[in-house]
Amino acid sequence: MSGREGGDRRDMAIRGAAEALRPAMVAALKELVQIPSQTGEEGLVQEAVARLMRDHGLDVDVWEPDAATLAPHAESVTLGSGFAGRPNVVGVYRGSGGGRSLILNGHIDTVEIGDRGAWRRDPLGGDVVDGRLYGRGACDMKGGVIANLFAVRVLREAGIEPAGDVIVQSTISEEDGGAGALAAVLRGYVADAALISEPTNLAIVVAQGGSLMFRLVVPGLSAHACVRDEGVSAIEKFAYLHRGLLEFEARHNGEIAHPLYDGMVNKAPINIGTVRGGAWPSSVPEWLEAEGRAGLVPGESLAGMKRALSDEVARLADADPWLREHRPRIEWRDGHFAPAEVAVESPLVHTLSAAWRRVRRAEPAIEAVTYGADMRHFVLVGGMPCVMFGAGDVRLAHAPDEAIFLDDLVAAAAITATFTADWCGAG
Amino acid sequence: MSGREGGDRRDMAIRGAAEALRPAMVAALKELVQIPSQTGEEGLVQEAVARLMRDHGLDVDVWEPDAATLAPHAESVTLGSGFAGRPNVVGVYRGSGGGRSLILNGHIDTVEIGDRGAWRRDPLGGDVVDGRLYGRGACDMKGGVIANLFAVRVLREAGIEPAGDVIVQSTISEEDGGAGALAAVLRGYVADAALISEPTNLAIVVAQGGSLMFRLVVPGLSAHACVRDEGVSAIEKFAYLHRGLLEFEARHNGEIAHPLYDGMVNKAPINIGTVRGGAWPSSVPEWLEAEGRAGLVPGESLAGMKRALSDEVARLADADPWLREHRPRIEWRDGHFAPAEVAVESPLVHTLSAAWRRVRRAEPAIEAVTYGADMRHFVLVGGMPCVMFGAGDVRLAHAPDEAIFLDDLVAAAAITATFTADWCGAG
Repeated sequence: MSGREGGDRRDMAIRGAAEALRPAMVAALKELVQIPSQTGEEGLVQEAVARLMRDHGLDVDVWEPDAATLAPHAESVTLGSGFAGRPNVVGVYRGSGGGRSLILNGHIDTVEIGDRGAWRRDPLGGDVVDGRLYGRGACDMKGGVIANLFAVRVLREAGIEPAGDVIVQSTISEEDGGAGALAAVLRGYVADAALISEPTNLAIVVAQGGSLMFRLVVPGLSAHACVRDEGVSAIEKFAYLHRGLLEFEARHNGEIAHPLYDGMVNKAPINIGTVRGGAWPSSVPEWLEAEGRAGLVPGESLAGMKRALSDEVARLADADPWLREHRPRIEWRDGHFAPAEVAVESPLVHTLSAAWRRVRRAEPAIEAVTYGADMRHFVLVGGMPCVMFGAGDVRLAHAPDEAIFLDDLVAAAAITATFTADWCGAG
Repeated sequence: MSGREGGDRRDMAIRGAAEALRPAMVAALKELVQIPSQTGEEGLVQEAVARLMRDHGLDVDVWEPDAATLAPHAESVTLGSGFAGRPNVVGVYRGSGGGRSLILNGHIDTVEIGDRGAWRRDPLGGDVVDGRLYGRGACDMKGGVIANLFAVRVLREAGIEPAGDVIVQSTISEEDGGAGALAAVLRGYVADAALISEPTNLAIVVAQGGSLMFRLVVPGLSAHACVRDEGVSAIEKFAYLHRGLLEFEARHNGEIAHPLYDGMVNKAPINIGTVRGGAWPSSVPEWLEAEGRAGLVPGESLAGMKRALSDEVARLADADPWLREHRPRIEWRDGHFAPAEVAVESPLVHTLSAAWRRVRRAEPAIEAVTYGADMRHFVLVGGMPCVMFGAGDVRLAHAPDEAIFLDDLVAAAAITATFTADWCGAG
């Protein structure tokens, strides 16, 4: 029998195993979704992940990241109140020897549920309705953690033994900078390539936007509301700066020349996410603090974007009689994301694309995204080529009624297993 | 000796006594300023006030307002968490009989200190610099409480015994609606006239603006910041509504025809005092709550202004594609102030003006103000004519470096004493 025929048979065995494991995959994802794991509170869900990994035959390493080790990277991750009770979990599937190694990474932390009244489904229910599983983290990205874990299980069920090591990671603290993934790199988990199963809608994402997390502090002048014209409203001054930042965003979009970002609605969004101002309804507000996120694309640097934003805030302040004398401040929070990319022509993208093509009998989309994720830690600190590929739509990621299509989840597991066999070499 | 000669001698005795009491007045005001008494925390300072009243020979009544008694007026005052440890203090100076009675009212609560960094003086210091005494409440209105108290003391020192009762009040909770003054009216403290020593810069204020306290709740649609155009920012939608409310304010100003408000920069200000929105820097904010105050002038009703503001918010929502389907809500907080006024031709205004003229040898300003205060409780509930008159500039009232000119404080005490003798009749 020819190698190609053997390959075809192997591909079919993988697809069959993935389909057969669908009920187990759904049950496992439901279990993880039912355990809340907002960033900072990952302990309980990681116990379930570690158990799943052991059940799947992996050698499991559970450890709490060490803030001192991460301190040199403090700008890019959040050290916050530390990592006690918030372990990383890594499961290693030892290869038979001689192949390329591969990291399959996913983060287990989620953003908060938000306004529960905006959800029509239970955010901690894991309900399956019309082929989707609902809940906070279903898509971003407990689904991805499950797809990675079951990719290895699929290989075992299909009787395929990879030659290189497969390292499945469930890391913490991605949503506030990626301390977990970085800690895994610094612990020595470095491989010949890494795949992060973020919700890319099954596209192969080769370029990841960066983001700066900022705080904008705007001074006003208090006065009694009855003579409000004697005061200066920090809320009104903020509105002026916000309009200015949105104009800056539009100009920046016009200047971005990266080909993979062409045609995007917003290549580098500036989002004001929170605002807190004033102390008393009948006083002119004398302070306001806003927090937000500014995007950048591969090829741009965090330092350069910081300078550009600081300059823009200074320019806006210079143009306003009050702010000229009472300067607004832009400060940098923890948790910046440097942009990162891998060459479209790299062996990693080539091998993953080929596996995708065989499983789906179609061409994969090769894309860039505007969000920042853990890719940069693997590329910039770990020196590994890294892509993102996974089921789920990022548009649902931080929104009410977050959900994942189960067909896509099974497809992601099948493609990941096929790719793993190809990349690591398999008998 | 003629009545006029006797009157001149009496006036001079009053002015002399007021000047002689200046050091005691300053010491007493300093003591009150050094005791913080933000609304809700009036207990400690009222102990000092009660002691001062007893020292000045008044019969003192100390009682905590009863929320059940105030409940029928809940729209106009704040019942909040009740009045335990927050007594009113009223001191009565019994007249010799046969004269008109008079209430001299002041509130003892203050707004919060705010951003301490914006103060160049200690907000709890009571420092005297260049003829002013500094600190939160110095002007709004511990100064006024002291002026009233010392007006009675001045009469005693000058050997003048009023025929009618003089009722000196130190009431709580004015800044959030005036539960204290209302409770005093409901306890039966009703007189032939009332004077509130709010900081009017020694003007005789005969018309008081009203104010509605509102909360504006604005819905957005959450999304990850990296696809912010898929979400709807509650912060941006609020900015649109805020601009609309400021346009409403300008139109309303143009429609106000009350002669005493002619020529004011802003006859009925709309102030957004606080804003809280969003939960996460990298999520599009899905909610925002703002709190504010909308002014109205005598002749306008709270109900009418509520309707006008609700209609305006609805009109603005109708004109916006998102808000049309996701309605912002305007809700009414506690602590509304109905506007109130007293006729310029009334005996009260006539008598106070005459006393003012004799002490200052000049014409008093007869004014209207845009702020709401306790005047309405005396006029609308107590059925008494009421004016506001006191030292201090309302422009400093809720601001950093609040202060009062001590010359004005002594003048206010002298005018109030002269007026009290005239109004109540005195031997």
